[in-house]
Amino acid sequence: MARIVQKYGGTSVGDVERIKKVAERIKAVREEGNELVVVVSARSGVTNELIARAKAVCAEPSEREMDMLLATGEQETIALTAMALHGVGVKAVSYTGAQAGIFTDKHHTKAKIKTINAAPIERDLNDGKVVIVAGFQGINEDGQITTLGRGGSDLTAIALAAAVQADKCEIYTDVDGVYTADPRVVKNAVKLNEISYDEMLELASSGSKVMQSRSVEFASKYDVVFEVRSSFNHNPGTIVKQEVAYMEKVVVRGVAVDKDQAKVTVSNIVDRPGSAARVFRALAEANVIVDMIVQNIGRGGVANLTFTVPQTDSQKAVRAIEPALKEIGGGTVDVKGPIAKLSVVGVGMKTHSGVAAMLFQVLAEAGINIDLISTSEIKITVAIDLARADDAARLAHAAFALDKL
Amino acid sequence: MARIVQKYGGTSVGDVERIKKVAERIKAVREEGNELVVVVSARSGVTNELIARAKAVCAEPSEREMDMLLATGEQETIALTAMALHGVGVKAVSYTGAQAGIFTDKHHTKAKIKTINAAPIERDLNDGKVVIVAGFQGINEDGQITTLGRGGSDLTAIALAAAVQADKCEIYTDVDGVYTADPRVVKNAVKLNEISYDEMLELASSGSKVMQSRSVEFASKYDVVFEVRSSFNHNPGTIVKQEVAYMEKVVVRGVAVDKDQAKVTVSNIVDRPGSAARVFRALAEANVIVDMIVQNIGRGGVANLTFTVPQTDSQKAVRAIEPALKEIGGGTVDVKGPIAKLSVVGVGMKTHSGVAAMLFQVLAEAGINIDLISTSEIKITVAIDLARADDAARLAHAAFALDKL
Repeated sequence: MARIVQKYGGTSVGDVERIKKVAERIKAVREEGNELVVVVSARSGVTNELIARAKAVCAEPSEREMDMLLATGEQETIALTAMALHGVGVKAVSYTGAQAGIFTDKHHTKAKIKTINAAPIERDLNDGKVVIVAGFQGINEDGQITTLGRGGSDLTAIALAAAVQADKCEIYTDVDGVYTADPRVVKNAVKLNEISYDEMLELASSGSKVMQSRSVEFASKYDVVFEVRSSFNHNPGTIVKQEVAYMEKVVVRGVAVDKDQAKVTVSNIVDRPGSAARVFRALAEANVIVDMIVQNIGRGGVANLTFTVPQTDSQKAVRAIEPALKEIGGGTVDVKGPIAKLSVVGVGMKTHSGVAAMLFQVLAEAGINIDLISTSEIKITVAIDLARADDAARLAHAAFALDKL
Repeated sequence: MARIVQKYGGTSVGDVERIKKVAERIKAVREEGNELVVVVSARSGVTNELIARAKAVCAEPSEREMDMLLATGEQETIALTAMALHGVGVKAVSYTGAQAGIFTDKHHTKAKIKTINAAPIERDLNDGKVVIVAGFQGINEDGQITTLGRGGSDLTAIALAAAVQADKCEIYTDVDGVYTADPRVVKNAVKLNEISYDEMLELASSGSKVMQSRSVEFASKYDVVFEVRSSFNHNPGTIVKQEVAYMEKVVVRGVAVDKDQAKVTVSNIVDRPGSAARVFRALAEANVIVDMIVQNIGRGGVANLTFTVPQTDSQKAVRAIEPALKEIGGGTVDVKGPIAKLSVVGVGMKTHSGVAAMLFQVLAEAGINIDLISTSEIKITVAIDLARADDAARLAHAAFALDKL
């Protein structure tokens, strides 16, 4: 007997038939004697429908009301999933985020989980019930409904796995696991049996669509081992866990592409201490996530800053920066986007050199211009032209022989 | 400046265009300086869609999960309505039933309001915000989401009007007010300018679709004067209030037909004290509402009980009665339905006689057989064949000259 947290994404619970299939899957695991906490997302498409309705009544819906609206998506799914379990004779009870004791900060649409009071869930698990929890949502100390932002349901699952001290955490999605590259782009991409948190993190932050980085960070922080796998078959997925020594034998474990980036250039800032800090503080206050920062000092005591932001946040970034520039005495801001970010990732890079050289070489040979470069211990990222992103991914995948993993 | 509670039903907020129209209507009232609490229902059709999905995953969904599911309908509307108000520059904030402090008993799908903590609403009204509250839902002391059953949104509005001591309560619906009869059946039915709680109650309990009786009872108990009117025009509606002396000049104020009834006959019960009580206790425990009770003693010390129940509850009634009959030593139960109930209602009946005689005469002349009769101070009800119900309504309307009101 184990205590298992499972998470089913929007595609897995996309309609009543799929919800019934999920119920059968849960029933099988329950009948093996396991305790189960199941996190579900909104049915696929529902969140987009709700957003479309919101936009139809108001050009810029308030974030507080957006959370109120979007939270209904998961609430529908938890009720239907609990009912489907009752339908197959399994005791089950649904929980909204608030009922599951998921307390967040006050940051609507992008709230962070502060604490989880798992006592009610423990009680229902002890009563032999499968507990179905709405992913993506929580409640703040004022009793307001919050949502956790993109990938929020994964975060709910991992946070709950930590809170209830689960033996296993399974993230069910519409892909079989984590691949060396996006199989739609790189035909000979292969599924990884396991991957370290750090690698998964770097892949996530580099645009691999499997999971958002914050969920992986949370798992890493609380040492929650989880498996990413498909709800449409019974294939084993990819296990994500702390790095172990043998992992370093593989130099590069994956190639990721993020096509939803914009390059922001802030030019002619007076070069004095605090100028750059003021710009980034403005971005932080606007909750814009910044990556690949390059600063260089131009002529005449002025500096230029270049960095990438998610394409969707690029106008928000400009609106945040402009008043900051006025405050520090001038400067201009330009945006180019969408552009692509290509990353190669692997914990083996820590102990192997020459990865950057190899990557730059294959891109140069293919005539792909590199706009910005950033590196970490286990990742090299380049900003490149969107139109060449898929070529670049295929070239890098081949150069590092990832199809042989 | 007045404090106004408005309630918009599902048709009034049926889609984003209608929600925007409601927002314009609210804006106009707000700009006259009034304070506003607005109760909204789920968009029309949404509740039925949700029920269909529930039935698709489970033949008999649990009531607790049904409440969890159905509560999403209103939650969507409150968010969209608040957004639509923001879109036209009106400060507004949405409240779920729980956030509005609507505490109910534990009776899922048919919960009763126990108390309302209006402090948060008061605070937002004082801040100049329009407060949008989800109708139909509340929370019980265990933190479970409950729903109030049919007509629950009206009840929410009237209970809130009492709780915030509103000057006016307006129930917006898709009809212009309360008519002397259903205008689809009786072509020359006329709209009433006002009606007493008791008359409205008798009409509601007799199947007039405008409002459920529990909302009117609540209004009567807390003396909440309310107006039933259309959200699609600016015509004055029908004001519902305590009875005043001049109302008695009108003998009959309306004719109502309920076509969703069943006649339950319990035969051959041993006629001893407590037998009938046992049957009705079983029905009460199953939450089946019983009307038009007739008991007669047959030969051989056995009694027969006949009464009407809503057609949808007829099987539930049978399931409740059968074990009770075993307990009291035998008896059989039969159901006939759907049948119709026709009522004529008016506070003037208290001081005028001959109403029953007139009704029985016109029905007899038309060959309409009367199955059961029940009377109150201000109402006469007859159970008749469903197929003759519309004829009977037209005949009664003409007999009491209701088109001349």
